Amino acid sequence: MNRDSTKLIALDWGTSSLRCYRFADFGRVLEQRSFPLGILQILRSSLATDHAERSRAFERAFSETCGDWVDAAPRAALIASGMVGSDLGWREIPYLRVPIDCRRLGGSLGEVRSSVGKLVHIVPGLMELTTLPNVMRGEETQVVGALSASSRHFLPEEFGFEDEFLIGLPGTHSKWVFVRGTTINHFETFMTGEVYGVLCEHTILGRTMSHRKNEADYSSFDRGVHVAKEFIGENGFLSTIFSVRTLGLVGDLSPEQQPDYLSGLVIGDEIATLIRLQTKRRDVQHTRRRPILLAGESSLCARYARALAAYGCADVEFAANATERGLWSLAEQAGLFSSDSEESIKNS
Amino acid sequence: MNRDSTKLIALDWGTSSLRCYRFADFGRVLEQRSFPLGILQILRSSLATDHAERSRAFERAFSETCGDWVDAAPRAALIASGMVGSDLGWREIPYLRVPIDCRRLGGSLGEVRSSVGKLVHIVPGLMELTTLPNVMRGEETQVVGALSASSRHFLPEEFGFEDEFLIGLPGTHSKWVFVRGTTINHFETFMTGEVYGVLCEHTILGRTMSHRKNEADYSSFDRGVHVAKEFIGENGFLSTIFSVRTLGLVGDLSPEQQPDYLSGLVIGDEIATLIRLQTKRRDVQHTRRRPILLAGESSLCARYARALAAYGCADVEFAANATERGLWSLAEQAGLFSSDSEESIKNS
Repeated sequence: MNRDSTKLIALDWGTSSLRCYRFADFGRVLEQRSFPLGILQILRSSLATDHAERSRAFERAFSETCGDWVDAAPRAALIASGMVGSDLGWREIPYLRVPIDCRRLGGSLGEVRSSVGKLVHIVPGLMELTTLPNVMRGEETQVVGALSASSRHFLPEEFGFEDEFLIGLPGTHSKWVFVRGTTINHFETFMTGEVYGVLCEHTILGRTMSHRKNEADYSSFDRGVHVAKEFIGENGFLSTIFSVRTLGLVGDLSPEQQPDYLSGLVIGDEIATLIRLQTKRRDVQHTRRRPILLAGESSLCARYARALAAYGCADVEFAANATERGLWSLAEQAGLFSSDSEESIKNS
Repeated sequence: MNRDSTKLIALDWGTSSLRCYRFADFGRVLEQRSFPLGILQILRSSLATDHAERSRAFERAFSETCGDWVDAAPRAALIASGMVGSDLGWREIPYLRVPIDCRRLGGSLGEVRSSVGKLVHIVPGLMELTTLPNVMRGEETQVVGALSASSRHFLPEEFGFEDEFLIGLPGTHSKWVFVRGTTINHFETFMTGEVYGVLCEHTILGRTMSHRKNEADYSSFDRGVHVAKEFIGENGFLSTIFSVRTLGLVGDLSPEQQPDYLSGLVIGDEIATLIRLQTKRRDVQHTRRRPILLAGESSLCARYARALAAYGCADVEFAANATERGLWSLAEQAGLFSSDSEESIKNS
């Protein structure tokens, strides 16, 4: 490892996983690592009930996953985003309020100092105060990355500066972000990924499933999307998901097909809701569907694109590597790279 | 224990619990026991992958929970209903098809013989073959019990013999049964109880909950029902449940209030769906809402009655002890009690 080449060590620390990136100049990713060490796993593995013990558990995980990088590049800046900055994380960083211009985020980083004196900058999450409030942590970083990646090429020519477009961020908790220019106006959260996981792992639906296949079974997935479209609006989510079991019982859905069918049901329900909400929110002058930019894990984005297509939303653009682009952009915005800056001195 | 007094030993063996009843003549319950030994726990505790080992695990549980009753009353009949008769249970008993007259059920019992020669009669479940099929196991016994308990007093005077009424069976998997006379015409399943459980135990929503309070917090429950009514139809289930966390984050829902609020959300979603389905199914000549008979655990039924009241369904009747009444009625229908019958000889 070249000591001088590392400019930034960045952590995407979410609910169910930790991803670490080592960057050189110009945001070039030198190395990346991934661990099943999301905050839920850390909370489960530490018997911590008090804040100090929990903080030590996060620091231990940081040191075990990135300690060698930090030792080899002591002047590199450190940044983290995601649930690590939540009330259940390493250090709680207050939310910023929506609407907000994404260009303001880099100037608002929080920080936590580790026991060996390293300063870790933490990206604040966003909060929207409506009747049912909404929050995000980590996805604001993906939005910044998606905006820097997209260059607005995905927007149709007639798209006005005042029109909103959508950024979709599938994941444990999916977010749908309504953006105008560089401003986040509004967003919605769906617990799709997490609910899918617990239905498979902890309910009777999982008892008859086989996960032996590695490849996605898109025909079962599409069937789930179709059933969600046809039935969930009337029969409800809690009733429709039981069809995983009953179609299996009558021999119409094999154990291998059940996981992808359920995936189609839950993602299909999310997209059905999104279509309803868009219709409600649509500006009077803007009668077409909003352009959509998807960012996230590519096989999951592929599922979302299929579900969107079932609703006639075929013009979907993918923003690659949005998280790492966002982490780099925010560190740059925050001025963490000037070689003799205070931060570098603090960290050396 | 008086050897002669026990006529029937009956098991209500469901997904998440096992309840055992010892009956004297005329269906008088002498004793009852309850164990957290539903089929999911038995499947988890046995490392069984093959049918024989699974069967032994059920037999072991039967012997450990009721063996003393059986030894003391060797001539008593044995009956079981619920998931014990499913493909994941002790012995799979084929489903009977809906529509079905409940008076036919007692003549269609299945059976399993234990290794010590005891014959256990098993009540068959019901299946309805629609686009999304539906199944029940155990609830058919509650329906029989509710019908024998209610004496139709809950039906309004102008209610015609051809009109359908509803029997609601809250539980791990709630059932809503559309009945005409003694015939089950149609039913729906909601995974409400099981989904509530896994959301509390295995998702991030549970991380901020406190279950310290023993009494139901009906004001938080009602708030959840209200939010379900206002929002789930538009925002969807997967989005609306996230409000447990976000209302907590903004200090508008305490850790102690969160379990009952979520309970209101999921039960509220079930009732909202039921109202939609009723409206769709309503006979042209029958414009009022259907009369409702609720059977099940009394504190859970109380929650359902509150949620129903929020939708203007105030005329709800409770059928007490439906399960044990149903088990007794079915054993009687099946002729298991004639003292010199073949069954008694087999079992002695």
